[in-house]
Amino acid sequence: MNNNKPKLFTCLSPSLLHLYDVNSSIVVIIDVLRATSTIATALYNGAKAIVPVDSVVECISLGKQIDALTAGERDGQIAEGLANGNSPFEYSKEFISGKTLVLTTTNGTKLLHMALAKNAREIITGSFPNLSAVCSHLVNKNENVILACAAWKDKINIEDSLFAGAVIQNIQHHFTIECDSSQIAHTLYSNAKADMYSFMQTHNASHYRRLTNFGLEKDIRYCLTPDTAPVLPLYTDGKLVSTII
Amino acid sequence: MNNNKPKLFTCLSPSLLHLYDVNSSIVVIIDVLRATSTIATALYNGAKAIVPVDSVVECISLGKQIDALTAGERDGQIAEGLANGNSPFEYSKEFISGKTLVLTTTNGTKLLHMALAKNAREIITGSFPNLSAVCSHLVNKNENVILACAAWKDKINIEDSLFAGAVIQNIQHHFTIECDSSQIAHTLYSNAKADMYSFMQTHNASHYRRLTNFGLEKDIRYCLTPDTAPVLPLYTDGKLVSTII
Repeated sequence: MNNNKPKLFTCLSPSLLHLYDVNSSIVVIIDVLRATSTIATALYNGAKAIVPVDSVVECISLGKQIDALTAGERDGQIAEGLANGNSPFEYSKEFISGKTLVLTTTNGTKLLHMALAKNAREIITGSFPNLSAVCSHLVNKNENVILACAAWKDKINIEDSLFAGAVIQNIQHHFTIECDSSQIAHTLYSNAKADMYSFMQTHNASHYRRLTNFGLEKDIRYCLTPDTAPVLPLYTDGKLVSTII
Repeated sequence: MNNNKPKLFTCLSPSLLHLYDVNSSIVVIIDVLRATSTIATALYNGAKAIVPVDSVVECISLGKQIDALTAGERDGQIAEGLANGNSPFEYSKEFISGKTLVLTTTNGTKLLHMALAKNAREIITGSFPNLSAVCSHLVNKNENVILACAAWKDKINIEDSLFAGAVIQNIQHHFTIECDSSQIAHTLYSNAKADMYSFMQTHNASHYRRLTNFGLEKDIRYCLTPDTAPVLPLYTDGKLVSTII
């Protein structure tokens, strides 16, 4: 094993983040269904910036203050007082281009602020729509990485673990991986990659059930499709912006 | 889905135990390398009881008080002041029969006491040496189950996840499983079951590396072999005792 390679870890739940050296790592925030998929999509379609905030109250207040669009969900549905939801299909080029979006979600924004509080060296967001952009960036940077899954109210979920596994599949030879969670995520992805949607169905994934109950199969299929929004969302000065890689 | 079936959850790290309804469940403490494998082996070989304690100090003190054997490891090696280690091979019938063992380990005993503090309905220990005994018991009891992995200093590990997956493989049709961690553990086991030792090797499992560095390949092989110590360790009145199932 080449010990000059940077280290890669996978953190499968925000409740485990304290176990990792956040301040020496690039942290990839992963909230596949649907926060980080929507972030990539909105930025790819020309959003000026996305400001992730913790609470609905803050979202409404900041939205007024900076005259931005507000969006967010609680338990998978548009939160009261906000104008827009958390579906990537809401953020077409026509709708979002040139605009700033203030976004609050159940799990993803919370995790991002945890990483921020722990002085992450850099924070980016990852999802299947921007899988290759994330992988290229991590290889180019050549620094320690934590793939941080947002999970669902701290319970580990299949889809975020699958994305971590997909990243590992792509970049494993550039990193030292001595982390059982990474191996588990990679094994999961290897089993699922031929048809991730069917894998979610047949494995009775909790979030698959939740979103399907809301009629969001189309969202799930989109959020499991790689590289439809090839952009790198980088957190800088309080907001996520599209960065040229 | 038959909703009359009891529920089964998998908790992949002690840091996640607060997410589960411990007080309405049978909690299976899983510390494959090597605490719960050694517990099953010692009880199968006739140990009268095993008293799990949190600290080395408590282990020494209680050992003197009740005139029992003391054993335990810290970071995979015999702890200072204790007479015996944590290898199942130390607990032959000749050595342990009729005796009480006070045991402290890095992860397993800590998790057991967490489950106790949360008023688990029942606490048993599970490992490959007593896999079928655990599975039979859980099916017969027909109550909610939490498969609780001891992990390594709260970091998820492959071997405890594999055991959870093996239990699920055996008893899944008797339970309602709406838990992504269970699906992940089951997928992992399905990939590894043909040769779990090789799976640990090729996936660079952290504990495999740790114990191999101590020359404990034989222990690892034993701890991954099912049903060599068919006994059910039940926690009752402060100690683990062999229970007829």
